[in-house]
Amino acid sequence: MSATISGNISCAVPIATHDRVVLGHGSGGKLSAALLKEHFLPHLHSHALRMLGDGAIVSAGRTQVVLSTDTFVVNPLEFPGGDIGVLAINGTVNDIAMMGATPAYLTAGFIIEEGLPMEVLDRIVASMARAATVAGVQVVAGDTKVVEHGKGDGLFINTTGLGLANSEFRPLPTSARAGDAVLVSGSIGVHGITILSAREGLDFQVDLASDTACLYPLVEVLRRATDDHVATLRDPTRGGVASTLNEIASASNVGIEIDEASLPVPTGVAGACEMLGLDPLYVANEGIFVAFVPEHLADKAVEAMRGHPLGREARRIGKVIDDHRGLVVMRTGLGGTRVVDMLPGDQLPRIC
Amino acid sequence: MSATISGNISCAVPIATHDRVVLGHGSGGKLSAALLKEHFLPHLHSHALRMLGDGAIVSAGRTQVVLSTDTFVVNPLEFPGGDIGVLAINGTVNDIAMMGATPAYLTAGFIIEEGLPMEVLDRIVASMARAATVAGVQVVAGDTKVVEHGKGDGLFINTTGLGLANSEFRPLPTSARAGDAVLVSGSIGVHGITILSAREGLDFQVDLASDTACLYPLVEVLRRATDDHVATLRDPTRGGVASTLNEIASASNVGIEIDEASLPVPTGVAGACEMLGLDPLYVANEGIFVAFVPEHLADKAVEAMRGHPLGREARRIGKVIDDHRGLVVMRTGLGGTRVVDMLPGDQLPRIC
Repeated sequence: MSATISGNISCAVPIATHDRVVLGHGSGGKLSAALLKEHFLPHLHSHALRMLGDGAIVSAGRTQVVLSTDTFVVNPLEFPGGDIGVLAINGTVNDIAMMGATPAYLTAGFIIEEGLPMEVLDRIVASMARAATVAGVQVVAGDTKVVEHGKGDGLFINTTGLGLANSEFRPLPTSARAGDAVLVSGSIGVHGITILSAREGLDFQVDLASDTACLYPLVEVLRRATDDHVATLRDPTRGGVASTLNEIASASNVGIEIDEASLPVPTGVAGACEMLGLDPLYVANEGIFVAFVPEHLADKAVEAMRGHPLGREARRIGKVIDDHRGLVVMRTGLGGTRVVDMLPGDQLPRIC
Repeated sequence: MSATISGNISCAVPIATHDRVVLGHGSGGKLSAALLKEHFLPHLHSHALRMLGDGAIVSAGRTQVVLSTDTFVVNPLEFPGGDIGVLAINGTVNDIAMMGATPAYLTAGFIIEEGLPMEVLDRIVASMARAATVAGVQVVAGDTKVVEHGKGDGLFINTTGLGLANSEFRPLPTSARAGDAVLVSGSIGVHGITILSAREGLDFQVDLASDTACLYPLVEVLRRATDDHVATLRDPTRGGVASTLNEIASASNVGIEIDEASLPVPTGVAGACEMLGLDPLYVANEGIFVAFVPEHLADKAVEAMRGHPLGREARRIGKVIDDHRGLVVMRTGLGGTRVVDMLPGDQLPRIC
């Protein structure tokens, strides 16, 4: 999702060179950044891709539009709270919304593995249609390919979206400034733990359902509350909150300090992470964003978001500082601080 | 490619109902049409997808743009004359050009199978970059996912393109009229036979290389020669010339009559088709288009195209008639006629 790379990525820990692609290259963490930097950018250096990751603002005649692309390979195809179809709609709509644009049109490309039951396909396409209606976008073009049994995995979906850019609202990963408050719009880690539970048949004795949602209405709430003063807006999908904050710290060349006690980690997610040895900061989310706003607007922004069903758990989790630029540090419960690095390799493959 | 469905598809031969997806659903023929009609359109009925297939003209502010999407699953990834990367650029650029628009921007979504050698990825991305430069388009956004070994097949690529629509040039599958001449811009069947030979290790004793090319410059030549009087323009990819002509006959509710002797089938393609029991009319192409122009402009159009390197084999292959609407018939070498139906199922899977 939005966890592809924007801005300049520094890898503090060296990444081993690979002569073949490994699963971790798809994690949204350091290995993904290395793959992009070493194997895509050298060739596509003359293209806007160099700077922009999965979304770009381009000129179409006199109109500025956002183009954003995302491919969905989530396993299993259906899970509590959603399926690959709803994820494919919301994921790309959210990527457009995070760039401050108004989502308008989507295209959908399907790779179907031979043998996929038609009833599964029907449910997923119906689910996409509903999600598109909720998000207020039109699916205007589609393409379907079929591959032999054993050469795919049920269904992969690419969605690419066009949004209308707003000249007065253009949050960027490079725009965070010392003094900004760091907000999160909701609970952390829910999508990733839900997928993991569904895939592995784990039962954490709690009801978890993916948080996948179209975040555009909540962005509108935030815009109104801050009079468009949002420096940076990102949805922390693959690689989780930790990777997203690291990308922003690096892109804006600022330090970010977060407070462990403030992180909204639901009990079910916390318990599952403890059992599995996972850190919720690296677990994927599909229904929240992080927003960087001027300190004096932070309380108002949080309060406004809490008034919306998608933002009930919104809160302030940290601030931007002028120290240790490019790094994210966390004040822990014990009063100390620790560096929160990017996800080095692969924590949870095929989460979206 | 453009072989997804535009307009109203009639299936003269009934298609068996399937409870699972089969390879033929990806063929670009009747089964593909049935899949779209029965499993996508009922859900996405409120969306523009209903009418438009893989490309659509939409409004972005005051600008009319074309969005077109295509996913590439060709096997093998590299073949004489190209690779999946160049195909992914040219395929989507051509789909935009066939709608009369000027290709401008592309996004690229990659699904990589774990274990893909980095050197293969490097070659393919480099090839994409070169093809984009030749086509004059910018790759502005990208996304990369990795799936486990055995859950993909090396590499799949989705490209989605944005083109600037031309108000004065808008060829449509629904615009063919009785009296129009049917032109083809080059030789038939080259891409499909090349892929088949490369995949199966066949040696037809002739040098075949994919005809993949960016057709936009040749469309410009045709526009100038006809003063924009081109009713219909399509690239006959999956499903071949036969399926494309059937789609147009159906969408425009006209009859199409082609002349077997006029078809530009290279000796190598003809020989391979004879050996394998294939009909070149159903074999995929990547570097030609069919164009419907008013009869009085046909000779001028053919002559102009022949003056361009991509159009040297251009010729007139038939005409639009007021008879047997929705059907394509061919005058054979023996003086008879036969109906040329859509590809019923799957002739050559994973050809693009």
